[in-house]
Amino acid sequence: MSRYPAVPEGIAFGGDYNPEQWPAEVQEEDVRLMREAGVTLVSLGVFSWVQTEPREGVYEFGWLDAIVDRLHDAGISVNLGTPTAAPPAWFSRAYPDAFPVTREGVRVGAGGRQHACSSHPAFRAASARLAERLAERYGDHPAVVMWHVHNEYGAPLGECYCAASTAAWRLWLRRRHEDLDALNAAWGTAFWGQRYGDWEEIDAPRWSHTVVNPAQRLDYARFASEEHLSHYRLQRDILRRTGKPVTTNFAGTVNCKSMDLWRWAPELDVIANDHYLNGEQPDNHIWLSMSADLSRSLAGGEPWMLMEHSTGAISWQARGIAKRPGEMRRNSLAHVARGSDSVLFFQWRASRSGAEKWHSAMLPHGGTGTRIWQDVVALGADVRRLAPVRGGRVTAEVAVAWDWESYWALELEWRPTGDLAFRERVDAFYEALWREHVTVDFVHPSADVSAYKVVVLPSSYLLTEGSAKNLQRYVEGGGHLLVSYFSGVVDEHDTVHEGPYPGALRELLGLSVEEFHPLREHETVTLTGGGTGRVWSERVHLVGARAEQHFADGPDAGHPAYTSHDFGAGTARYLAAGLTPAGLRPLLGALLDRAGVSRPRDLPENLELVRRGAHTFLINHGPAPATVTGLSGTDLLTGAPFTGDVPPGGVAVVAPTQE
Amino acid sequence: MSRYPAVPEGIAFGGDYNPEQWPAEVQEEDVRLMREAGVTLVSLGVFSWVQTEPREGVYEFGWLDAIVDRLHDAGISVNLGTPTAAPPAWFSRAYPDAFPVTREGVRVGAGGRQHACSSHPAFRAASARLAERLAERYGDHPAVVMWHVHNEYGAPLGECYCAASTAAWRLWLRRRHEDLDALNAAWGTAFWGQRYGDWEEIDAPRWSHTVVNPAQRLDYARFASEEHLSHYRLQRDILRRTGKPVTTNFAGTVNCKSMDLWRWAPELDVIANDHYLNGEQPDNHIWLSMSADLSRSLAGGEPWMLMEHSTGAISWQARGIAKRPGEMRRNSLAHVARGSDSVLFFQWRASRSGAEKWHSAMLPHGGTGTRIWQDVVALGADVRRLAPVRGGRVTAEVAVAWDWESYWALELEWRPTGDLAFRERVDAFYEALWREHVTVDFVHPSADVSAYKVVVLPSSYLLTEGSAKNLQRYVEGGGHLLVSYFSGVVDEHDTVHEGPYPGALRELLGLSVEEFHPLREHETVTLTGGGTGRVWSERVHLVGARAEQHFADGPDAGHPAYTSHDFGAGTARYLAAGLTPAGLRPLLGALLDRAGVSRPRDLPENLELVRRGAHTFLINHGPAPATVTGLSGTDLLTGAPFTGDVPPGGVAVVAPTQE
Amino acid sequence: MSRYPAVPEGIAFGGDYNPEQWPAEVQEEDVRLMREAGVTLVSLGVFSWVQTEPREGVYEFGWLDAIVDRLHDAGISVNLGTPTAAPPAWFSRAYPDAFPVTREGVRVGAGGRQHACSSHPAFRAASARLAERLAERYGDHPAVVMWHVHNEYGAPLGECYCAASTAAWRLWLRRRHEDLDALNAAWGTAFWGQRYGDWEEIDAPRWSHTVVNPAQRLDYARFASEEHLSHYRLQRDILRRTGKPVTTNFAGTVNCKSMDLWRWAPELDVIANDHYLNGEQPDNHIWLSMSADLSRSLAGGEPWMLMEHSTGAISWQARGIAKRPGEMRRNSLAHVARGSDSVLFFQWRASRSGAEKWHSAMLPHGGTGTRIWQDVVALGADVRRLAPVRGGRVTAEVAVAWDWESYWALELEWRPTGDLAFRERVDAFYEALWREHVTVDFVHPSADVSAYKVVVLPSSYLLTEGSAKNLQRYVEGGGHLLVSYFSGVVDEHDTVHEGPYPGALRELLGLSVEEFHPLREHETVTLTGGGTGRVWSERVHLVGARAEQHFADGPDAGHPAYTSHDFGAGTARYLAAGLTPAGLRPLLGALLDRAGVSRPRDLPENLELVRRGAHTFLINHGPAPATVTGLSGTDLLTGAPFTGDVPPGGVAVVAPTQE
Repeated sequence: MSRYPAVPEGIAFGGDYNPEQWPAEVQEEDVRLMREAGVTLVSLGVFSWVQTEPREGVYEFGWLDAIVDRLHDAGISVNLGTPTAAPPAWFSRAYPDAFPVTREGVRVGAGGRQHACSSHPAFRAASARLAERLAERYGDHPAVVMWHVHNEYGAPLGECYCAASTAAWRLWLRRRHEDLDALNAAWGTAFWGQRYGDWEEIDAPRWSHTVVNPAQRLDYARFASEEHLSHYRLQRDILRRTGKPVTTNFAGTVNCKSMDLWRWAPELDVIANDHYLNGEQPDNHIWLSMSADLSRSLAGGEPWMLMEHSTGAISWQARGIAKRPGEMRRNSLAHVARGSDSVLFFQWRASRSGAEKWHSAMLPHGGTGTRIWQDVVALGADVRRLAPVRGGRVTAEVAVAWDWESYWALELEWRPTGDLAFRERVDAFYEALWREHVTVDFVHPSADVSAYKVVVLPSSYLLTEGSAKNLQRYVEGGGHLLVSYFSGVVDEHDTVHEGPYPGALRELLGLSVEEFHPLREHETVTLTGGGTGRVWSERVHLVGARAEQHFADGPDAGHPAYTSHDFGAGTARYLAAGLTPAGLRPLLGALLDRAGVSRPRDLPENLELVRRGAHTFLINHGPAPATVTGLSGTDLLTGAPFTGDVPPGGVAVVAPTQE
Repeated sequence: MSRYPAVPEGIAFGGDYNPEQWPAEVQEEDVRLMREAGVTLVSLGVFSWVQTEPREGVYEFGWLDAIVDRLHDAGISVNLGTPTAAPPAWFSRAYPDAFPVTREGVRVGAGGRQHACSSHPAFRAASARLAERLAERYGDHPAVVMWHVHNEYGAPLGECYCAASTAAWRLWLRRRHEDLDALNAAWGTAFWGQRYGDWEEIDAPRWSHTVVNPAQRLDYARFASEEHLSHYRLQRDILRRTGKPVTTNFAGTVNCKSMDLWRWAPELDVIANDHYLNGEQPDNHIWLSMSADLSRSLAGGEPWMLMEHSTGAISWQARGIAKRPGEMRRNSLAHVARGSDSVLFFQWRASRSGAEKWHSAMLPHGGTGTRIWQDVVALGADVRRLAPVRGGRVTAEVAVAWDWESYWALELEWRPTGDLAFRERVDAFYEALWREHVTVDFVHPSADVSAYKVVVLPSSYLLTEGSAKNLQRYVEGGGHLLVSYFSGVVDEHDTVHEGPYPGALRELLGLSVEEFHPLREHETVTLTGGGTGRVWSERVHLVGARAEQHFADGPDAGHPAYTSHDFGAGTARYLAAGLTPAGLRPLLGALLDRAGVSRPRDLPENLELVRRGAHTFLINHGPAPATVTGLSGTDLLTGAPFTGDVPPGGVAVVAPTQE
Repeated sequence: MSRYPAVPEGIAFGGDYNPEQWPAEVQEEDVRLMREAGVTLVSLGVFSWVQTEPREGVYEFGWLDAIVDRLHDAGISVNLGTPTAAPPAWFSRAYPDAFPVTREGVRVGAGGRQHACSSHPAFRAASARLAERLAERYGDHPAVVMWHVHNEYGAPLGECYCAASTAAWRLWLRRRHEDLDALNAAWGTAFWGQRYGDWEEIDAPRWSHTVVNPAQRLDYARFASEEHLSHYRLQRDILRRTGKPVTTNFAGTVNCKSMDLWRWAPELDVIANDHYLNGEQPDNHIWLSMSADLSRSLAGGEPWMLMEHSTGAISWQARGIAKRPGEMRRNSLAHVARGSDSVLFFQWRASRSGAEKWHSAMLPHGGTGTRIWQDVVALGADVRRLAPVRGGRVTAEVAVAWDWESYWALELEWRPTGDLAFRERVDAFYEALWREHVTVDFVHPSADVSAYKVVVLPSSYLLTEGSAKNLQRYVEGGGHLLVSYFSGVVDEHDTVHEGPYPGALRELLGLSVEEFHPLREHETVTLTGGGTGRVWSERVHLVGARAEQHFADGPDAGHPAYTSHDFGAGTARYLAAGLTPAGLRPLLGALLDRAGVSRPRDLPENLELVRRGAHTFLINHGPAPATVTGLSGTDLLTGAPFTGDVPPGGVAVVAPTQE
C-alpha cells in the first residue's frame, strides 16, 4: 500500500468543496475558477451523508457522479470523503440513543456535527454501509485519487458517556487488563475502597462532586481515542480494497488533545493535518511550524498533506483576525517547507448560510474582485513552481518528546499544582529552538532516537520503564538528553515509580528530587544563570550529576536548578525550573553547541530557515529585509538567481543551481 | 378599543400591591397611606393564582372582592392581573411535564416564578380558565380600569426546550415555511448535511458540543417570542370582552432581548414597561431615557405606562445601590417627560418574606418615618401637579433603528468577532445623541421613517431586502441615513446577501466592503477625524461615495472609514469603525447640523431637556446649577414662573404661560 | 459516656493509615517506622468498605484483624473507622438510585467518594449493618480505643436532590412545621403565590431560572445537615454499645459551611477536626488558629482532637504549596496550644496510586531520607514532651458569635448586595483580635455568654428573638457587646423582624437603621476615626445611643458609623461599616481596654501567645527573633529554662517551674 496519494504532479493545491450548497450554474463557475487558480485536488462529500443517503438505505449518487465527472473533465482530482461526521436528521430520529452524552450527563443535540457516538452499533453499521457504497461506486473512478474518512475525529467529540460507550468501555477494559485483579492493581482501587468484583460494576468515569480515580480517567481517555480509531479502521478497511490511499484529517496535530495520534498515524496511508492559525496569538507562525513538524513526525519523516487551513479569518475563534497581506502565502509555504506536499484550504467557496459562513474561503463572498482571491490565484502559481520540492525530506538533529498519554495524565485533577500544563512546557522549548533556527522532530519517548544529537523531554510526567530504558540507551550511546522537571514520575497507570523522584530517570540523571515546591500564582524564581522560572521549584539532591546552575532565590535558593550527568558516552541534563523561552535560549544554545547541532548563525530572529531535500526555504516573518549569506542557487518562486535578500514578509525557495 | 386605560385624571401614581401578604389591619393601613401618598392606581393579583384557585377548579374570590371594594371606596383604581406567572404547587404536581427545560436539558424547578411552559396545553387551558373567571367576576367592577396579563414575559423564561415546546415548534415551522424545501433552503441545511426529509425529524436547537445551525436558532428565538405572545393573546382575547384595555408589562423594553416587542406592541391596548435602573452604571439615567424612548416608540408615539420601577435599591442586581436623594424623583419624571402617563412602582409595601424582601418599596420596612416614604409622598404631589402633561406627545427628529431579529442574529456564535454586540453600538449612538440633547425615536428598519430628518442604523446585521428598499426610499426622498458597520449583511434567514458586502445596502451607500478586519482584544483604531474605534475595522472600496474620514492606523490605514453618498435627494453615510460615544459626537454633530435637526445649544451636558406636548421638562443630573435661557412659562412643579435656573439634581416642568 | 478517648498517655500522635494499599512487608515496615516516629494512634478502615464487605452481606475481616493485632503488638492504638464514605462498586450497581443528585439534576458518578445519599434506605441499612459487624468484632479489642464514623460529612456531599432525599425532606418538614399553615407562614408563601395545599406538593428547592424561596432553601440547608447527622447517629448508637467513644471528623470547622456543627457537637463523644492550611493565603496560620478555636468552642472548652492535617502540600488546592521548614511544627503545636490533645495527619504513607497520591504524608514517596520524615520524627518527640499539656483548658475573655443558620441565610441570593459574606466579616474581626494577641471562643448567639468580657457579633443577619433577648441579658448584666452591620435583621424563617432595622437589636443598640447603602465594587468609605470600610454603608439614627465615630465620606457622610449605648450595667456598640482588620484594631483595642480584657502588650505582632492550663505556648511566625518578658519557667520542648527568646519560626511551651 502506497503511503502517498496518486495526486497529479507537484504540490497539490485546492481545498474542501461542498457543491451541494450551490446550483448547477455556480458549480460550473466553480470549476472554471478552480482552473484559473490552479486547483489540482478537492475534498468532496465530507458532510454529504443526507445528500447521498436521504433516507435509511436509499442512496442518491447522481449529484455526486455529476460533480466528480465535471471535476475530472477539468483535470482536477478528488479526495472523496465518507460523510460520517454529519449524521442526518433521519438517523438521529431513528436512533436517538446514538446521541453522544457528556461526562455530566447532558445529551448532545443535533444541528451541529459529530452528534453520533462512535461506539454505537447503528452508527457503526451505517458507517460501514456508506463506505461500502462509496467504494463500490467510485473506487475505480479515475478522478478519485484518495479517500478522506470522517472529519476531524476528536473535534468536538472526544469522550462519550452514553450507554453504548459504557458497554464498549467494559469490553475494552477486558481486552486491556484481561483480569480484574490486574485492573484493580493498575487503577490502585485499594485507595478510597474502589475495588471491583465484577466487570459489570465498572462505570465510565462520570462527573463526580469530587475527583475521580485518575487511572480510570486515563484509561478512559485511551479508550475514547481508540474507539474513534476503531470507527476509522472500520471504514478504512473497506475503502482500502479499492487500492487507493485512505486518510482522515487530524484536527490539528498540536491542538487535538483527545486523540493519541501516535496510535493513529500507522493506520493512515498518508498523514493529513488541518491547521488553523491562532489569529490573535503573537508570533503565531511559530506554532504553525510546530504543528507542521509534529505532522511530519507522525508521518515518520515522509511527506504529509496540509488538508485544511484558512485563507483568512477563522470564525470559530473568539475574534476572527484576518490574515495580513502575504501572511497566507507565508503560512502555506511554511507547511510545504516542513514536509507538506499539499496546500489545501477549508473551503473553496464561502458559504452563504450555515455555521461557517464567516469562515474565510478561497473564493470569498465578495467574489473574484477581492484581494483574497487574487492572493489565492497567485499562491496557486507559486505552488506550481514548487513542484520540484515534492517528496523531499526534512532532516532534524534535535527531537522533542511528545506523548499524549502523559499529556492526559499530567492535566488530570489534583496534581502538585494546577498550573502544570503540557503545552506550556513544549511550547516554551519549541519557541526557544525555533528562535535558534533549529528544526525539530517530535518523538514518542519509546521511539528510536539514536539518530538525534539532542533529545528534549519536556513535562513527560508519565514515562514507562521501557521508555526510560530507551532514553538511557540513547544517552549511553552518546546522546544529549535534556529532561524538564516533573518527568518520569509515574508509570502508564499513573502510579508513582518507586523510590525518590523521578523514579524512572533517577539513575540516568544522577540525582533525586526530595520535594516539589510549586510556586504561588505569579511567583517566579531566578536561576544563577539569569533565567526566570515560573510555576515550579523543587529540591534536587545530586547523586552523581553536577550542578550547572542553582536557584538564586525562592524555596530552593542555593540548591541545584540545572544539572548534567555524564552517563555512558553521553550526557543527561535536568532542568528543575520552568524557564521562559528567553531563559531557555542561552541554556539550549550551549547545549546545541556542545552536541554539535548545526544551525545557521547571524540570521535575523524572525527569518525562518528550513531545508527540505535540496531546497532551502527562507520565510521572513519580520518587518525588515533579511540578508542570507553563503547560500546560492535559483529561487523557485521567481525563477531568478537567489540574491541573498528576502524582503519583509517575503519567501524564497532556493534550489541548487544545477537543478 | 381604546389604546389608553380609563385611569382617573392626570398621571397615574401607585404600584404593584400584593395584599395577600398582609392581615386585614395592615391592608386597612395600606389604603389609608395610599391616599396620603396620592396613589390612584394599583396592580393587583399579579401573583395570586393559588390564592384565587387554591385547588384545581376551585375558586376563592372573597379576599379579592374585599380588597377591590376597599380600594374602590378609597377612590383608587385597579389594574387587575392574571396570575399566570405564578403557577401554584398543585399545578406543578399535577402537570410535572409543564416545567420548562433549558437548552442543556435541565428542568426548571418550582419555588421561583414562570415555571410553566407557555406552550403546554394544560397551562394554556388553566390560563384561559383563570382569565375567564376574572373577566366574569370583575369585568364590570368600576374599580377595575384595566387588565394586566401575566408578568414580564421573557424574564426569566425565554426559550423552553420541553416536549410540548418541541411539538409546538414543529407546528410553528409548518406555518412559517409551509414546505420542507422552503425550510431547508431558509436554514441552508445543505451545509453540514442537515437536510430534513420529514417535519418530525426537526428538533429544537438543543445544546451541542459545537455550534448549531444559526438559522434554526434564529427561528427558535422567533418561535419563543411568538409562543409567549400567543399565550398572552389567549388571555387578552378573553379579557377584551369586558371592554377594558388589556396590557402586559414588558420586562424592560431595552433589556428584554428574548421578546420581539415590535410584534408584541400592536397586541397591547397600552404599552406598559418595567424599568429598573442599573444602579452601578455611571450615568445610568441615559439608559433610563433610552428605555423610555423605546417604550414610546413601541406605543407609536402615544402615551404609555411606566408599570414598575423602584424607589431605591434593586435586590436582584449584583449590588443593590440605593438611589441618592432626588434620584427617584428625577427618574420618575424623566419617564413622564418621555411619554409615560403613569409613575408606578414595584411594590407598594416591602415584603417581610420571600424572594424580593430586599427590593425597595414605596413603603419601606422602616415605615413612614423613612426618607423614602417622605419622597414617595412628595412625588405623589409632584405627579398630581403634572396632570396637564397627560396625553402630550413627544416629537423626535432623529430615529435609531432597533430590530430584535437582527439583535438575535448578530449575537449568535461564530460571528466575525465575538466582540460584536447589538447593545454596545446602540448604546454608543444613543449616548452621543443624548449628550447632544437630541430626543430620538426607535424604529424598525421596515417602518415609515419619512418624517425623520436623520435615521441611524447601528449594527443592523440582519436586514431584509424590503427594509433595505424602505431605507433607500427614505434617502431618495431627502433623508439623511447613517449606517454603522456590519449592517445589511444577511437576510431574514441569516443568509449572506449576494455579492460584496453589505449586500442590501451597497448601492445605497455607494461602496463595497471587501474584508472585515476585527480588532484584537483592547486594540483600537484612530480615524483621521480624531475619533477612536474599538472592535472593528474593514476594507471599504468607494463606488460612488466619497470618503469623509479615513482610518489613520490599523489594518485599514489610509482607507475610507466614514463616507457619504448622495442618493436621490438625500445622503447615505457609512461609518466603518466602532467609534466611542466621544468619537461619535463631532461626527453626529455635523450630521445633525447638516440635516437641520433642531437642538438646544449651550446647555450643560448633564441637563436633560425634553419637550412633551407644550411642556418642557428640564432635569438636572449634574452637581452644578444649570441655567436655561429663552424659555419662559410656569413651572408646574412649583406653580411659580420659571426663572431659568434648575438646581443641582432638580427638575422643572415648564408650561407655556397661557396654559 | 466519657467525652474523651482512652488514648494512651499524653498527646496522641499519628494519622490515617490505609494499609490495604500495601503488601505485608510494607505494613511491617510501617509499624516499625511508626514506632520510630513515636506514633501512638492511627485511624484505620476509613475507606475500607469493599475490603471488609467485598460482596453484599459477605464479610472479610482477616486482613483487618491482622493489622489491628500488629498495631496492638507495637503499642499503637486504633481509631477504627466505619467506611461508609466509600460505597463499593457493588453497592452502586445494586442501588443506582442511591447516587446523589445535584440541584441542577446531575447524578453524581462513582469513582470518587461520598457517592451515596445519606437519606437512601439501602444506604442506611448497609451502614447500620457495617457498624454492627465492626462493633461486634472489634468492640472488645484492646487496641481499638475509639470509633471514627464515616469521613468528613458535608465534603463534598452536602445537599442531595434525589428522590429519597425529597421523600425524607417532606417527612422532616412535617416534623419541623407540624401543619401546612405554619409552613406557609414560615416560608412566606403568600408572596409569588407559592402556598402549599398538600405536603406532597412540596419539592426540594431545585435549580430555577430565577431565585427560589429563600426560607425554603434555608430549611433545606438545615434538613441536609440533619440528614447527615441522622446517618451519623444511626452508626453512633450502635457503636456506643461497645462503651468506647465515638466521633466523626469534621471537614474543617471553619470551612464546612454545609453542616451546622453546633447541632453535631453534642452528638460526638469527642470533637475531631480536620484542618488543611490554605497554602497560598498570606498569614494562613491566623485561620488555623481560628479553626482550632472553633473546634475547642464546639467541644465546650474541653480538649478536642486534630484528626487530620498535612505535613506539607495539599493536592486538592489550586497549588500545592509545600510547608516551609518549621511550618509543620508550628502548625501542629498551634493546634495543641488551642486545645487539641492530638496531632494526627492524613495520611501515614503517601499513596503511589489514586486521587490523593500528590497529597503530602508522614512518610513521603521519597521515604525516610526526606526532610519531611525527619521533621515528623522530630515532631513525634516534641509531642511526647508535651504530655503534661494534655487535658489543659484554654480560657478566653472574648467571644465571637458564629451561627451556621445565619451564614446560610446571609449568603442566599438577592441580598442587599452580593458582596455580603459571613466569613469575610468573621475573618476581619478574628484577624484583628489575633493581632492583638487575644484568644477568642466562638459561641452561638443563644449560648450563655455571661462569662465573657466582650462579645462580638459579626454579620449575624439571622437572629431569633430568643438570641436577641439572650444578648440583651448579657449587656444588662454588664457585658460589652459589639454588633456588626446587617445583624439581627431577620428571624429563623428569613422573615424581616418588624419595625425599623435591626428589628431584633434596635432597643439594645439604641438606634435604628433607615436604609442600607451597599457600596459599589471597589468603593470604600472612611470613618472619622480613620478606618476604611468596604461593602457597606447605611443610615443610622440614634435613639438613645451616642455616636463614637461618623462616616467621613460616602453615602452616609456625617452620619453615625460607630455607636455605643449604655444598657443596664453594660454597653452595646454598633459598627455600621465594613472596616478592614487594620481599621478594626484601634476600635477593638479601645473596647478591650474598656472591658478590661487582659492581653500581652509589646509583643511582636507575629508572635502567637496562647495559654493552655498552666502552660504558655509561644509561636514565632515572624522572620525575626522575639523576646517575651515577664514569663519564666521551663520550656517543655527543650527541657531547659525559658530564656525569654523565641527564635524566628520557633516555638516554646513554657511550664511553671514547679511543675
